[in-house]
Amino acid sequence: MTANSPVGDYVQMDAVDWVPFPESLCDGPIRWKLLHVAPESGAWTAIFDCPKGTSFARHVHMGPGEYFLTRGRMNVRGGSTEGGATAIAPSYGYEACNARHDNTEFPEDSEFYMTFLGPLNFIDADGNTIALVGCQQVLDAWSASTGS
Amino acid sequence: MTANSPVGDYVQMDAVDWVPFPESLCDGPIRWKLLHVAPESGAWTAIFDCPKGTSFARHVHMGPGEYFLTRGRMNVRGGSTEGGATAIAPSYGYEACNARHDNTEFPEDSEFYMTFLGPLNFIDADGNTIALVGCQQVLDAWSASTGS
Amino acid sequence: MTANSPVGDYVQMDAVDWVPFPESLCDGPIRWKLLHVAPESGAWTAIFDCPKGTSFARHVHMGPGEYFLTRGRMNVRGGSTEGGATAIAPSYGYEACNARHDNTEFPEDSEFYMTFLGPLNFIDADGNTIALVGCQQVLDAWSASTGS
Amino acid sequence: MTANSPVGDYVQMDAVDWVPFPESLCDGPIRWKLLHVAPESGAWTAIFDCPKGTSFARHVHMGPGEYFLTRGRMNVRGGSTEGGATAIAPSYGYEACNARHDNTEFPEDSEFYMTFLGPLNFIDADGNTIALVGCQQVLDAWSASTGS
Repeated sequence: MTANSPVGDYVQMDAVDWVPFPESLCDGPIRWKLLHVAPESGAWTAIFDCPKGTSFARHVHMGPGEYFLTRGRMNVRGGSTEGGATAIAPSYGYEACNARHDNTEFPEDSEFYMTFLGPLNFIDADGNTIALVGCQQVLDAWSASTGS
Repeated sequence: MTANSPVGDYVQMDAVDWVPFPESLCDGPIRWKLLHVAPESGAWTAIFDCPKGTSFARHVHMGPGEYFLTRGRMNVRGGSTEGGATAIAPSYGYEACNARHDNTEFPEDSEFYMTFLGPLNFIDADGNTIALVGCQQVLDAWSASTGS
Repeated sequence: MTANSPVGDYVQMDAVDWVPFPESLCDGPIRWKLLHVAPESGAWTAIFDCPKGTSFARHVHMGPGEYFLTRGRMNVRGGSTEGGATAIAPSYGYEACNARHDNTEFPEDSEFYMTFLGPLNFIDADGNTIALVGCQQVLDAWSASTGS
Repeated sequence: MTANSPVGDYVQMDAVDWVPFPESLCDGPIRWKLLHVAPESGAWTAIFDCPKGTSFARHVHMGPGEYFLTRGRMNVRGGSTEGGATAIAPSYGYEACNARHDNTEFPEDSEFYMTFLGPLNFIDADGNTIALVGCQQVLDAWSASTGS
């Protein structure tokens, strides 16, 4: 994978296999495809496959993120019944810098595409960093999974 | 539409009607939905419906852009037969800052979602600016179309 | 000049000569040193030497800019007597995306350092683009001046 | 302090008092003035007063940073004698996303202005996060110091 090519990058998404998302960062068999890293700004882009019942571990967005939920349903920040939002495909969401996501759950089989600026700070219940996941870390995780 | 809300924005995409994209910027009945503007950085996000035979007018990306082609086929920079790229859904593309798109054509009914940083510089054949389309201009165009 | 080096860039500023800023973009003998271009995001950084009585031509910031006025005085958007701001060194200013600067004047010998995200849109009195000056254009102008 | 004002922010720098930089993040009496936070993108800007013999604790830039050293001397990444860089005022430096600074020392009284995109990850010798310092954390620290 290269970034910042003068003529742009291209990924034929159905020619790339899904790989397991690091299990320390989620609960259940979430899979992903890393689509781009932008090493200058620290941005990155990925698509996630989230079977019913899966969820992401608690994290804070250290920069803005934008998602396009293409399939299913996603409860963000606890879902609309707990003061957060429930996204229903097809939908778009902007998660602001410093948004804290204690609970991002998928009550149905779901899929979403997301662009991130900067790292995700995975934290414990007291707010201590467990894993700081920026463009370098996602590239390392992806490379380890795919051998590329 | 608000931007930079402390808890994030949400758009139920199928509850928003398509509106015609400004006809000075494209050829044929392209429609769009503006999903977000980020007034601090000048970023913006939209989804486009591009029937077979439509195309965008000549433009230069003044910052990076990332697309997710969800349906159809898009010839970028002339398509792969002319040294550019032909995107086939589902696909991802990164268009670098300063990428010039003389021809962005849709040989099939197509749809793509795209995030933009900074303006598009629509130009004539000599490179003179015809329209500079940044986050303020897309918001104005969207508001004029929708009365919002 | 390289950008996005893995270990960072460094410029010994007093070892670089001042060169004239393009005269179509200013009134009077403003000089500058281009310090950095970030081709991925379209950002750029420069320092400007602005003798008493000089000014910049009318322009709009298409992304945010931040200045550090190290010496002298700068009237922004007409200065504080006309609803704008008068910066007096040492001072910091944030010019928001879409800020329009009809008049940026230096009533004293002045110097400022500035970081820019995205291009400056130099315009005529009707708002038509005269010159769109982004990271590529500043690099081209700098290279033409210095032969580097 | 407000951010993203439609007409821009202004700080008369000599009217703002220096305050101690959090001592857990540095060694010796470094002082700073926070000049701006950009809550949308997570960017922030500050100026630092670093007496002879002070240093910053080990950290990684999670996004790019640009400094303007106005006075003194700064050894970055160990200084030029250890494979890093020694900045001598007046100088400019670009510290890339993911740059790791084990040692940022000031062998003379020094001052530098710096713009940051995203957080600094202060780490221990094993790379574990001790403090993640982004735009919210700097604003909190500044507000606590100044009562503003």
